[in-house]
Amino acid sequence: MERTLTSDISSKIGEKVKLQGWLYQLRELGTINFLVIRDRKGLAQAIIENPDEIEKLRGMQAETVLEIEGMVVEEKRASNGAELHDVTVTILNAVKETPPVVINKKELDLNLDTLLDYRPLTMRNIKQQAIFRIHGAVQQAYREYMLSQDVVEFFPPTLLTGSSEGGSELFTVEYFEGTAKLSQSAQLYKQICIGVYERVFGIAKCFRAEKYGTSRHLTEATQYEFEMAFVKDIDDILYFLQETIRSMVNKVKNNYAKDLATLGVELMEVPEKIPTITMEKAQLIVYEESKGALDDRAEPDMSPEGERLIAQWARREQKSNYVFITHYPRKKRAFYSMPDPDNKELTLSYDCIAVSGDKDGFEIASGAIRINDYDMLVQSAIDKGLDPATIQDYLNIFKYGMPRHGGFGMGVERFTQGLLGFHNVREVTMFPRDVNRLRP
Amino acid sequence: MERTLTSDISSKIGEKVKLQGWLYQLRELGTINFLVIRDRKGLAQAIIENPDEIEKLRGMQAETVLEIEGMVVEEKRASNGAELHDVTVTILNAVKETPPVVINKKELDLNLDTLLDYRPLTMRNIKQQAIFRIHGAVQQAYREYMLSQDVVEFFPPTLLTGSSEGGSELFTVEYFEGTAKLSQSAQLYKQICIGVYERVFGIAKCFRAEKYGTSRHLTEATQYEFEMAFVKDIDDILYFLQETIRSMVNKVKNNYAKDLATLGVELMEVPEKIPTITMEKAQLIVYEESKGALDDRAEPDMSPEGERLIAQWARREQKSNYVFITHYPRKKRAFYSMPDPDNKELTLSYDCIAVSGDKDGFEIASGAIRINDYDMLVQSAIDKGLDPATIQDYLNIFKYGMPRHGGFGMGVERFTQGLLGFHNVREVTMFPRDVNRLRP
Repeated sequence: MERTLTSDISSKIGEKVKLQGWLYQLRELGTINFLVIRDRKGLAQAIIENPDEIEKLRGMQAETVLEIEGMVVEEKRASNGAELHDVTVTILNAVKETPPVVINKKELDLNLDTLLDYRPLTMRNIKQQAIFRIHGAVQQAYREYMLSQDVVEFFPPTLLTGSSEGGSELFTVEYFEGTAKLSQSAQLYKQICIGVYERVFGIAKCFRAEKYGTSRHLTEATQYEFEMAFVKDIDDILYFLQETIRSMVNKVKNNYAKDLATLGVELMEVPEKIPTITMEKAQLIVYEESKGALDDRAEPDMSPEGERLIAQWARREQKSNYVFITHYPRKKRAFYSMPDPDNKELTLSYDCIAVSGDKDGFEIASGAIRINDYDMLVQSAIDKGLDPATIQDYLNIFKYGMPRHGGFGMGVERFTQGLLGFHNVREVTMFPRDVNRLRP
Repeated sequence: MERTLTSDISSKIGEKVKLQGWLYQLRELGTINFLVIRDRKGLAQAIIENPDEIEKLRGMQAETVLEIEGMVVEEKRASNGAELHDVTVTILNAVKETPPVVINKKELDLNLDTLLDYRPLTMRNIKQQAIFRIHGAVQQAYREYMLSQDVVEFFPPTLLTGSSEGGSELFTVEYFEGTAKLSQSAQLYKQICIGVYERVFGIAKCFRAEKYGTSRHLTEATQYEFEMAFVKDIDDILYFLQETIRSMVNKVKNNYAKDLATLGVELMEVPEKIPTITMEKAQLIVYEESKGALDDRAEPDMSPEGERLIAQWARREQKSNYVFITHYPRKKRAFYSMPDPDNKELTLSYDCIAVSGDKDGFEIASGAIRINDYDMLVQSAIDKGLDPATIQDYLNIFKYGMPRHGGFGMGVERFTQGLLGFHNVREVTMFPRDVNRLRP
């Protein structure tokens, strides 16, 4: 007999079916047993009355792999409208040890470290499953949007000789007789590629040897990269960023309603135009939102608390879960950010701040128009205290015809964290890596 | 005026248009100049007669970024059926130094090292561009096929404590006060994930610290991963592998005809059923094909020369560029490969061998039904000389309910190499990494 999925039984009432999956729950009520089986589509209930079949289940722990055959009977009280009767059981792989964590309930009552230590098991929990299906949907939507816009995929390497940004905090790899570094950015490679394909996207792992233990930092993170040539101004890129976000939110909202309901998340529409304010204006808003308690107006950057306030302002005043902040000061941006022609202390740069939950908000994407003139770039590196010789590989590509271009990089884990309103980025990362965690 | 792409000018005959791109060629014939401009869609020709406009181009080297405006005139001899007249030129970014390599011709007359050293420039060559657009199409087709089959994406980490396979040849990373290893396989993670989603796919970077300098080996390679639960036998997985290959070949064949023509490649249809033979049978074929010169019949594995012969046999005798070989001996496969119940010396494993060019062929994918019983897996590790304690993280997941499952990993760069018939895998790798190469 062909296997039926739990989600399909309601269309097979009166038929005999075979289900395969994991033992989710077994409630023994004397002569009648309620067995709940989990497969990739959800749960189904079966009634077992035959003592021989009940006997087969003796000693079987949760997560035992099994197969059941039975008659589908309508049952309005069951979540999928049907259940199985007259069931025969086949144990496919017995679990004899009690699993170290209880996963067959909606809320896992575990601290974060335990949740992550037992990820192979905790991921099987219905709610945990939903997180990563949504994470996959976000990735799918990003690629689909890019491909729909005639954007070509590029393939950045992970192993490098050093940083194109002259940055610190690079992991060192023992590489045969020498050493290599792990990439912390695909910046050089996407810039190389706009000289070929004009518009490129790619998914890049980024490694940062930062000792931060905060709820926002991973040592191994994933970036959605985009870069485009022949741009006029910031708005050309922000449009792509806005529509990327819209595609991702809509994909989840339209296709993952069941998973959103499981997580108790209601998604807000992305507005037709995501509110866009300058850094100067944003700092003023933060000052006012905090009733003068937080004054970043003299600072070149925004504090985490400022990001929270601006995110909550955007939701309340602009009905948007996203806000673009533009024109960051030159001293806080990479040397290759294009200076603002109207104010050389500023850059043609931008961040996207996302709302996360009721009170949180943080940066999820960042980008700029890049300097595309070789001499100007060399001077900007020197101004920033970089020795051009150490980044000559990067600089060289600007000698041979780079059009005006810009792009963005989006931290995927943070995007999903914001979307679903989780407190810690590790909760939406399948196998997170940080200072203290390299397992499982 | 809005920008027009070179591919669109033939639909704008009699109109004034603006093109943006790179200086591809400038032929000066006295008072008349032929300028060819390249953009992401190809080439377009412009006639320049105005001495002021000609003057602007003086000293401009190939790859100068420019903008031209002019009237579109029908010109049957031009490849896109039209050219620009009455042209005004704006230099957007001048190239003053002669580029170190000549890229504005069809065939790059460069040795492989030079080609790769100057990848940021050589990739701009029309033929080189085509390679990576096709590589992107392959990746797109893989994902589309997987998503169409209800397969969920998983996200394997790169930084690990060690190998799930107990293997050597792992790169070591300095990780704060300790060390980490770079992943050489997503095996553990896809197996974890079939316990959750049953069917998973993912794109994983794999790092191998092997000192091979061959045409087939990279230290940083990309794998397309697939794993599926509740399988019956090898054929369940081989069907997915076959249809993945078909989707990739068809995507390129149907949507990238122009790029294939540029590369001079004609793709053969994937047969309805890819020929599938046992290892024993394959060794016999190799013996016969080589007229007795190559006898691997007593060997547990197939030599590179054997793979070549079997690939050419498949094309000639089976009209297929792909062949599946099954039932490899246990001593040559990973400890977690399921033994063949009919012959315990063999495993329920398989490779896919692909034809590459007229005389070459090699393995592009590999997989097996996996052992899913904890005790059997521990014994198999011991039989293979592995200390179970060193792979306990891997083994533990088998204690809590793993269904029968199997999958494959496909080397993407090798797949594209075979598809396009290149001699060296580095030619189809955007930024290849090997013992001697970490740049650009």
